[in-house]
Amino acid sequence: MIDIFSKRSAFATNPIREEDTAAEHLEREGTHVIRLNTGDPAVYMPTPRYIIDAYVRALQEGRTSYSRSEGIVALADAVAHRYSRMYGVDFGGDAVVVTQGISEGLGIINSALIDEGDRACIFRPYYPAYMTNLRLAGGETVRCGYNEDSGWSIDTDEVEKALGQAGGVIKYMLITNPNNPTGTVLGRDVLSELVDIANDHELLIMSDEIYDEIVFNGASFTSIAQLARGVPHVILNGVSKNFDATGFRIGFIVVPEQDETSLALRQKFLDYVRVRLSANTPAEYACAEAFNNVAEHTRATKAMVAEIQDRVNYSVDLLEENEYMSVVRPEGAFYAFPRLDLSSLAFQSDTEFVRGLLDEEHVQITRGSGFGEPSHIRLVCLPPKEILGDAINRINSFCSRHAR
Amino acid sequence: MIDIFSKRSAFATNPIREEDTAAEHLEREGTHVIRLNTGDPAVYMPTPRYIIDAYVRALQEGRTSYSRSEGIVALADAVAHRYSRMYGVDFGGDAVVVTQGISEGLGIINSALIDEGDRACIFRPYYPAYMTNLRLAGGETVRCGYNEDSGWSIDTDEVEKALGQAGGVIKYMLITNPNNPTGTVLGRDVLSELVDIANDHELLIMSDEIYDEIVFNGASFTSIAQLARGVPHVILNGVSKNFDATGFRIGFIVVPEQDETSLALRQKFLDYVRVRLSANTPAEYACAEAFNNVAEHTRATKAMVAEIQDRVNYSVDLLEENEYMSVVRPEGAFYAFPRLDLSSLAFQSDTEFVRGLLDEEHVQITRGSGFGEPSHIRLVCLPPKEILGDAINRINSFCSRHAR
Repeated sequence: MIDIFSKRSAFATNPIREEDTAAEHLEREGTHVIRLNTGDPAVYMPTPRYIIDAYVRALQEGRTSYSRSEGIVALADAVAHRYSRMYGVDFGGDAVVVTQGISEGLGIINSALIDEGDRACIFRPYYPAYMTNLRLAGGETVRCGYNEDSGWSIDTDEVEKALGQAGGVIKYMLITNPNNPTGTVLGRDVLSELVDIANDHELLIMSDEIYDEIVFNGASFTSIAQLARGVPHVILNGVSKNFDATGFRIGFIVVPEQDETSLALRQKFLDYVRVRLSANTPAEYACAEAFNNVAEHTRATKAMVAEIQDRVNYSVDLLEENEYMSVVRPEGAFYAFPRLDLSSLAFQSDTEFVRGLLDEEHVQITRGSGFGEPSHIRLVCLPPKEILGDAINRINSFCSRHAR
Repeated sequence: MIDIFSKRSAFATNPIREEDTAAEHLEREGTHVIRLNTGDPAVYMPTPRYIIDAYVRALQEGRTSYSRSEGIVALADAVAHRYSRMYGVDFGGDAVVVTQGISEGLGIINSALIDEGDRACIFRPYYPAYMTNLRLAGGETVRCGYNEDSGWSIDTDEVEKALGQAGGVIKYMLITNPNNPTGTVLGRDVLSELVDIANDHELLIMSDEIYDEIVFNGASFTSIAQLARGVPHVILNGVSKNFDATGFRIGFIVVPEQDETSLALRQKFLDYVRVRLSANTPAEYACAEAFNNVAEHTRATKAMVAEIQDRVNYSVDLLEENEYMSVVRPEGAFYAFPRLDLSSLAFQSDTEFVRGLLDEEHVQITRGSGFGEPSHIRLVCLPPKEILGDAINRINSFCSRHAR
């Protein structure tokens, strides 16, 4: 039965988690590992009290049966209100399908849209699960990406060119804003051009906006919902990052428009979520409260984002002292994504670098090649500064020790 | 963009949920609908207090970050202990991968095993999500099933014949024990023969045992883990039914053995769950407590199963008074699955029957064709007897009114 696996199953990997087994092994031996691989604010900053209280209340009230497959009405409505309040975009709760994190949404979207050999436009460097889910569905990517030399911006002429040369059926363009791993916040002009390009090529435009409240260093965020009015589009979001509630596994797919394609998309996503019956019900009730209590949320997020800005900038300052790498300062999310100067280091690849660092310095980070961008590394900048400082000092001395 | 959907996406349907929109529409108009479509004990019997308390404790202790992708160690170990305690089968927590309900497990298993055109042996009538997930992965079924005439038993000679005639690559045999929708509890002898047949044909044998503690009317349950010693096999289970905690979305895939294939399966399932980072973390802590508190669990389950036996038998007694259908008395789970005598009713199909019943009598049930068995209906027998009695009386008068 050794040939039991499907061909596609080879794509089921997550570079962010690939050193977890090795790290756990070290920990079981009594070695402390500084884990900077998973973007999980709740490890270092407790989920706000008012959300926990709402979750407890839901449990005490017996909200433990399956919910509606597309999510409880209160949560779907609360998500719709958020978009009206924050972005002036009006749609009803029927535009919202609650998913078990964006991860589940990605599986559904790719299964729903991608036939073997279809393509999607995903900008390098990308969150790995985009590519995994696309490939598990039999799809391939169009080669386009951010330009590091101009501060991880997107050159829309290059996007046009890439789409023109790609051939085959291209189903969607997926934007991540703010971007993981680069922390890029796309400007309104670039986003507008991307919407126009997607329309010209008849691609569905999708935007993963899971970090839309975690924007700093003077950047300002624009939702695709503000720009793609009257055009079918899909927004992915959830409570993991903005609401500091990663372990709840509550995300959502939003299809704001009412045209024929948008209504068909809503129905299709509903068909898919019905297959798995429901998301975690008490968490849905907690999240409805999280969205509706704007005063508490604003207070909690403001404090969290100030702290994140401080930690990211502190990390970048320290990384800038390292002569073996260069880094663009992020404006959103909570990662640093330095480029390794492999010509000056005794490593063949980012993979070798990451493994060596875990072995020798007990710091777990993620290889850039896992995000489609070799010769880079991704660090999560969420721990307190003492821990970040310790970790980056280890990285810096590791580099000095392995200078070529 | 009307042609935007993949070909496979047409399979993303769930007959159990397909009348939900119509039922909600009636409810919004002020009509009370008796919903006997979703097998959800927590609607009528509260999730045990000690589990709720453990869930609340996990939240108060701040267990809200992502967990290990394969589930917290305490839960994996607790699941392993359960199999040792209940079935005398010993394996470690590393045999267990925690999933977001069995639903997620089915998606993973089919993606991991099925290439376009591969087959799987799934016995009719089946839980619909088996077929949906198989087809979404490009697979097809081998035609085999339970025989209603002999009380929904499985004729192993017929299974042999079906496998011999099927052609192509057959990847796995999936048993559901107790079965949904028929309530069949397979005897040790039949199970043994099925294990032998699977081995002879080099099929991976899988058993969905989500109802393994909900067995009554004198039946006794055997886990596939007791029979498939030394042979690679997969068990699916979770907390939804036995622990009355549907809305938690915690299930698991167990690969008990240690042979090369089993170890490869464990690694592959781990690779898959890493892509979506984690299940609901506080629910995992609650479930570890649910499994470890054997005294509380035994007490709660005993009471629940006695109540379920009573409600199922009461429903079957009432259905037996209906001359337009016949029903085999279940020995497990909590469904009744009567055959409609369509020759004596003015309906062309079970689908027509189910829609008419919702429209006229405001009782929502599920069509048997959704389980691969046309001319049948499935009723969930979980509500209190007053409600069940009311619903079945409506069904009976509906039949009299529409006699041919």
